[in-house]
Amino acid sequence: MTRVAVVLSGCGVYDGSEIHEAVSVLRHISASGAAYACFAPDIEVPTINHATGEPAEKRKVLAEAARIARGEIRPLAQLEVAEFDAVFFPGGFGAAKNLCTFATDGTDCTVEPEVERTIKAFKEAGKPIGACCIAPVILAKVLGTSSGGTGCELTIGNDAGTAKAINAMGATHIEKPVTEAHADRTARIVTAPAYMYGEAAIHEVDQGIGEMVAQTLALASQAVAAG
Amino acid sequence: MTRVAVVLSGCGVYDGSEIHEAVSVLRHISASGAAYACFAPDIEVPTINHATGEPAEKRKVLAEAARIARGEIRPLAQLEVAEFDAVFFPGGFGAAKNLCTFATDGTDCTVEPEVERTIKAFKEAGKPIGACCIAPVILAKVLGTSSGGTGCELTIGNDAGTAKAINAMGATHIEKPVTEAHADRTARIVTAPAYMYGEAAIHEVDQGIGEMVAQTLALASQAVAAG
Repeated sequence: MTRVAVVLSGCGVYDGSEIHEAVSVLRHISASGAAYACFAPDIEVPTINHATGEPAEKRKVLAEAARIARGEIRPLAQLEVAEFDAVFFPGGFGAAKNLCTFATDGTDCTVEPEVERTIKAFKEAGKPIGACCIAPVILAKVLGTSSGGTGCELTIGNDAGTAKAINAMGATHIEKPVTEAHADRTARIVTAPAYMYGEAAIHEVDQGIGEMVAQTLALASQAVAAG
Repeated sequence: MTRVAVVLSGCGVYDGSEIHEAVSVLRHISASGAAYACFAPDIEVPTINHATGEPAEKRKVLAEAARIARGEIRPLAQLEVAEFDAVFFPGGFGAAKNLCTFATDGTDCTVEPEVERTIKAFKEAGKPIGACCIAPVILAKVLGTSSGGTGCELTIGNDAGTAKAINAMGATHIEKPVTEAHADRTARIVTAPAYMYGEAAIHEVDQGIGEMVAQTLALASQAVAAG
């Protein structure tokens, strides 16, 4: 059975994993017959009251992400690449605030150490990486030529500012609609815009994520066949 | 366009709306071409750390539910039945702890006043109600013959204790598998077991909820046609 890791960043669009996206990733993995395990960094971060938009108290990312995972979650430091065939990064501001500092620092962002370790480990093992919404900026930072990587093609939809930042970090942005994903088969990276299209309907976001999951799992099965 | 209300009870299986179920309800509504609006009671309740299972601080149900609703949510007191063609209640312990006291009081439970008002208003208007997982117990309490109602058929799957409680409150439990829903076309109530099957896969839960949404919206469209 194909086993994949899903890296969450909290629980809620404004300070964690975008919930609709994370659930969509889990459901498509499960429907395909693969098994998933959820991980999140064991860090504490400021939150946002999602009813008012106001800043709120600090919370533990692992405990909040556990809400999406129904309690079944491990600290990201425990993720062993050998256990999994692929890894997924759903979006939400948590991806840009908790997994890296892109939300505040843009192309000068730093990446949470366990997130960077995870991305590099899957990349070096030739195991595919799926990411959606804003999460592809983390891949651009870690794998882009500006950081000494080999670069990769990524989509976040059609947001001009974010696309420019991706290119500036030494990756290549490809424009895609919300219902599609883009696969860079050489880099073994599949990305989808999801709620980077802010007005998209939940079922459109789900469709694009379904493409992302399917193409990532297809790459994972090819790796198994080749190995 | 068909417009439906979704009543959330927080954000997380152990103290709020079960996230996978709530997202599934929203996605199936959207995919069917209907529009949804989210509501939650404006109350504060104890929470559970979902990573450890330990009791944790109090939180506002409305602000937590707003995480599932991406910020677009209103207090349940503002729900006007005239604006909507149907109403849905996803499950999770929040349905049994925040929307009523079934989790602690069983068949002697009380129902949150705005929740009771909402259920009675939709019932009296002949507008259908959909509920899944443990949420059908609220309908049993409000609409069961033990409370002076006319009763209704409900499913929570095959959990013997909960089925017995539903019958004791003056409703009629019907056993169903996780991938199906049960429609009481006379009472205009559609229910699905969802994660009452604790070992169910997320895509199986989604399938049953899809049936629940489809049959509820079918009843809603018949009401419009008859009206």
